[in-house]
Amino acid sequence: MALIVQKFGGTSVGSIERIEAVADLVVKTRQQGHQVVVVLSAMSGETNRLINLAKQIDTRPSSRELDVLISTGEQVSVSLLAMAIIKRGHSAVSLLADQVNILTDNMFGKARIAEVAATRLKHELEHNRIAIIAGFQGRDIEGNITTLGRGGTDTSAVEIAAAIKADECQIYTDVDGVYTTDPRVEPNARRMSQVTFAEMLELASLGAKVLHIRSVEAAGRHNVPLRVLSSFNPDEGTLISFEENDMPSKVVSGIAFNRDECLIKVDGVPSGTQYLSKILKLFADNGIEIDMINQVNHIFEKIDYAFTVHSNDYLQALELLSEDQAQLSAQNISGLPTVAKVSAVGMGMKSHSGVASLFFDALAQENINVVLVSTSEIKISVLIDEKYLELAVRALHKAFLTENG
Amino acid sequence: MALIVQKFGGTSVGSIERIEAVADLVVKTRQQGHQVVVVLSAMSGETNRLINLAKQIDTRPSSRELDVLISTGEQVSVSLLAMAIIKRGHSAVSLLADQVNILTDNMFGKARIAEVAATRLKHELEHNRIAIIAGFQGRDIEGNITTLGRGGTDTSAVEIAAAIKADECQIYTDVDGVYTTDPRVEPNARRMSQVTFAEMLELASLGAKVLHIRSVEAAGRHNVPLRVLSSFNPDEGTLISFEENDMPSKVVSGIAFNRDECLIKVDGVPSGTQYLSKILKLFADNGIEIDMINQVNHIFEKIDYAFTVHSNDYLQALELLSEDQAQLSAQNISGLPTVAKVSAVGMGMKSHSGVASLFFDALAQENINVVLVSTSEIKISVLIDEKYLELAVRALHKAFLTENG
Repeated sequence: MALIVQKFGGTSVGSIERIEAVADLVVKTRQQGHQVVVVLSAMSGETNRLINLAKQIDTRPSSRELDVLISTGEQVSVSLLAMAIIKRGHSAVSLLADQVNILTDNMFGKARIAEVAATRLKHELEHNRIAIIAGFQGRDIEGNITTLGRGGTDTSAVEIAAAIKADECQIYTDVDGVYTTDPRVEPNARRMSQVTFAEMLELASLGAKVLHIRSVEAAGRHNVPLRVLSSFNPDEGTLISFEENDMPSKVVSGIAFNRDECLIKVDGVPSGTQYLSKILKLFADNGIEIDMINQVNHIFEKIDYAFTVHSNDYLQALELLSEDQAQLSAQNISGLPTVAKVSAVGMGMKSHSGVASLFFDALAQENINVVLVSTSEIKISVLIDEKYLELAVRALHKAFLTENG
Repeated sequence: MALIVQKFGGTSVGSIERIEAVADLVVKTRQQGHQVVVVLSAMSGETNRLINLAKQIDTRPSSRELDVLISTGEQVSVSLLAMAIIKRGHSAVSLLADQVNILTDNMFGKARIAEVAATRLKHELEHNRIAIIAGFQGRDIEGNITTLGRGGTDTSAVEIAAAIKADECQIYTDVDGVYTTDPRVEPNARRMSQVTFAEMLELASLGAKVLHIRSVEAAGRHNVPLRVLSSFNPDEGTLISFEENDMPSKVVSGIAFNRDECLIKVDGVPSGTQYLSKILKLFADNGIEIDMINQVNHIFEKIDYAFTVHSNDYLQALELLSEDQAQLSAQNISGLPTVAKVSAVGMGMKSHSGVASLFFDALAQENINVVLVSTSEIKISVLIDEKYLELAVRALHKAFLTENG
């Protein structure tokens, strides 16, 4: 008997039929002798419907009240699933953030979980009840409703699993696991049966959409084994493990990519770290996150900087830099929005040389120019012209991951 | 400066446009220098939409989970109204039952309020915030979400008004006050500017739908002045007062009616109160409420009983009696569903004789037979054939309430 947390996303509970299917799946797990705690998202479309109501009143509605509004989405799905499980003859109880005691900070719309109390959940488990918890939401210390932002329900599930020391946190979604790359781009992409936590962290941060980076971080922090699997076609999915010795034999585990990056160039800045410092402060003060950074030193002590930012922040970033151009002593400020990032990730890179060479060869063979490069112990990322993205993904997948590659 | 509780029903907040209109109305009251606490129903149609979702899963869904589900309706409307008021430059905060601390018993779907804590509301008022409270809902002592059933939001408003010692509890609805009778039946019906609490209690219990009996009872228990008025066309409405000296000059204040009653006859029962006792226990054990009771004593010590029950309980009541016919020693059990109750209510009846005579004369002139009669100090009710109901209402309205009547 194991203690399992099962999280179902919006498409998994997107209709009454889907909720019935999830009820069957939960009951089946229970009947196999496991204890089950379920964490749910809102039915797909519901959160957008609610946000649309709010926007009709105010294009920038009160963030506290927006959280009160959209947290109803999960309240609806948990009550409906509880009804469906009770109808199947099992004890179930829906629980909201205040009933479980999920404490967050007070950053409405993007709150972080500070603590999940295990008491109530343990009580329900001891009484053989299936607890069905509204994900994506919490309460701050004053009792205000908060929501966790993107990937929030995954994070809820992981934090809950950590609190009750679950044996596994299963993330049910609309794909059946983590793939070597996006199958819509590379039809030869394969599901990995296992991936290490470190690799998953890189893949998620580099654009693989199956798990949100915050939930992977939380899993890492709490040492919670994660499994990604499909609620439409339940199989073994992909296990995200902490066991280094479970490392796959391939040097590279997956190819990730991200279309949402834009390039910003600040050229001809005098040497001295104070200028870079000023640029970074300007971004930080305005909540703009920088991903890749590159620095090219010229003769005559001039330096060119290149940054990538999220496409949502692109225009604001350019505007801010242009306003401060004189103060930054920059000769030229320019941007290029039509770029994309492609990355290869693998624990094997640590111990295998020649990976970078193979990586750049694969791109060179397709005449793909590299604008920026960024590396870590277990990944290589490059920024390229967006129109070559699919080609680059397929070339790298073939080089590292296809059976005859 | 007064402290006013304003309650808005489902049609009053039935669309974004209506919520904007309510925001204007609340802000106007605030700008007149009053302190305002708002209590809201769900947007009209929303509760039914949610119940329909539940019924797709289970025709008799878990009552605990049904309350979790339908309480989201009020959560949506309070957050949207708070946004609309904040957009207008005023401080507002939506509050749910657990945030206000509205304690109820644990009768899901028909819970009764045990206590409303004033602390949080006073705190918000002291900080000049307009508190917008989700009506219709509470929490039981274990923290489970409960709902109050029919007329629940009116009851929430009255209990909240009592807790904070409001000067007036304003019930905004889709009609502009309490009428002498239903204007859809008698076009000459007039809005009363004032009605006593005792009269309103009778009118509500006799079928006037504008206020639910439980909210009127709560107002009476806590001595809360109520005002019924329209959110579509705000005017002075109808004040429900406790002042006997404000008694209207008319002997009869209003004509109420109820189509939902059915007649049940138990004939030829031996004399002795034990048989009536058995019948009443049978009803009570099955949760069937009796409205009117009549007893006719015959020679040879046989007694005929007549009762009225709600049409929802009619078939079950007949079935239960038929099963126990032998045990009740009844010669015959029969029913008549096509009956209706019409009543005249007025404080003036206490001091005026001849009201009953005028009442029965008005019916007799239209050849309307009376099946059952029931009276109190301030009302006369009769059960008649349903098809004569409109005729009876108009005849009584003419006799007591038309200017030339």
